[in-house]
Amino acid sequence: MTELRHTRDDKLALILRASATMFADKGYHEASIRDISRETGISLSGLYYYFRSKEELLFLIQDHCFTTLYENLGRLLAEENDPYQRFLLMVENHLRYFVNNMKEMKVLSHELDSLTGEFRQRVNQIKRQYTETCSSVLEALAPEDSGIDARVAIYSLFGMMNWIYNWYHPERDVAVEELAADMCQLFLRGYLSGVAERSEAVAERFSTPSPSIWRT
Amino acid sequence: MTELRHTRDDKLALILRASATMFADKGYHEASIRDISRETGISLSGLYYYFRSKEELLFLIQDHCFTTLYENLGRLLAEENDPYQRFLLMVENHLRYFVNNMKEMKVLSHELDSLTGEFRQRVNQIKRQYTETCSSVLEALAPEDSGIDARVAIYSLFGMMNWIYNWYHPERDVAVEELAADMCQLFLRGYLSGVAERSEAVAERFSTPSPSIWRT
Repeated sequence: MTELRHTRDDKLALILRASATMFADKGYHEASIRDISRETGISLSGLYYYFRSKEELLFLIQDHCFTTLYENLGRLLAEENDPYQRFLLMVENHLRYFVNNMKEMKVLSHELDSLTGEFRQRVNQIKRQYTETCSSVLEALAPEDSGIDARVAIYSLFGMMNWIYNWYHPERDVAVEELAADMCQLFLRGYLSGVAERSEAVAERFSTPSPSIWRT
Repeated sequence: MTELRHTRDDKLALILRASATMFADKGYHEASIRDISRETGISLSGLYYYFRSKEELLFLIQDHCFTTLYENLGRLLAEENDPYQRFLLMVENHLRYFVNNMKEMKVLSHELDSLTGEFRQRVNQIKRQYTETCSSVLEALAPEDSGIDARVAIYSLFGMMNWIYNWYHPERDVAVEELAADMCQLFLRGYLSGVAERSEAVAERFSTPSPSIWRT
């Protein structure tokens, strides 16, 4: 299993791509290894050379995606010291990877709960490492008095970026460069402004713990 | 079916809540009506008084959530003319509803594809109406030269807000008022600044259609 992860194996790449598409379109629980055999033209025994169960296949997809995303980011950050540029690289890396892997993105979002035991632990570990790296990029950029909660900041950014699998169509929406530029613009201005610049209207509306708009 | 939607029926409310929790935790395809019967203590025939199939139950959950969210927003906007305040109300309404309905939020995000035919059409219609209302609130606020694509803007905002079901824990994260204030702050500054104020670094990095960071 561990050795497969880094194998540059075209057949495995084909299997992972076809399986992710099937899991995304049909649902993990609905799709069978037999379906994947039909779709790829690879025999059942050919498939079972790469994994022992459907769950291991799901693990391989998730592990491959997060590991690639994380390793790409590490390479990019290793060559850049400017905090602002590091932020742009991080957003670009994330969006570019997932625009090219939207089916995988849907599977990562929807099917984490379908992994159990060691599979789940290993995926959670790589996700945690990735989140920590991204958080440290954000922290290096933050003004001391931003007043924005660190978890709200990082997960708002992830939310903006990850939600694209629900709406983004490369063929009729803006190109990935504009997507990245717009999201950086949307996120950064607010993130970089200090608490003193916080809009009075925002501060005022949300300063009371139980606003009146809710009846119950 | 139509009449049920607006019925204030405590038993139905209990069924929808228990079913949403079960679908969120166990997965829609894995959970059975029998499980829901056990969980709620309501007999199978008691359950089938409210719906004819598991799919209709899923429809009732989705329809109820989106309709409530949409109607709440309509009531709030009817009493406010200021574009800025309308935006704050919209964010607050959305976050407050889903913070109180996180299991339902997960079901809405993961199980739209599980609906077919008329069920799916009706949920898509109410989602479309809600999205249109939110888009018009955003448009009324936008500077003429914001330069941010309208679809990127609205879905970035939805992404920030909707992603909370993946990370937000009311008992250990910031209160919903701060969540709303932080997200408004993060989104608004970038959204309200014109294209002339766009960071040069952002414009520069994303102006080329094929940046060099990608090897293939």
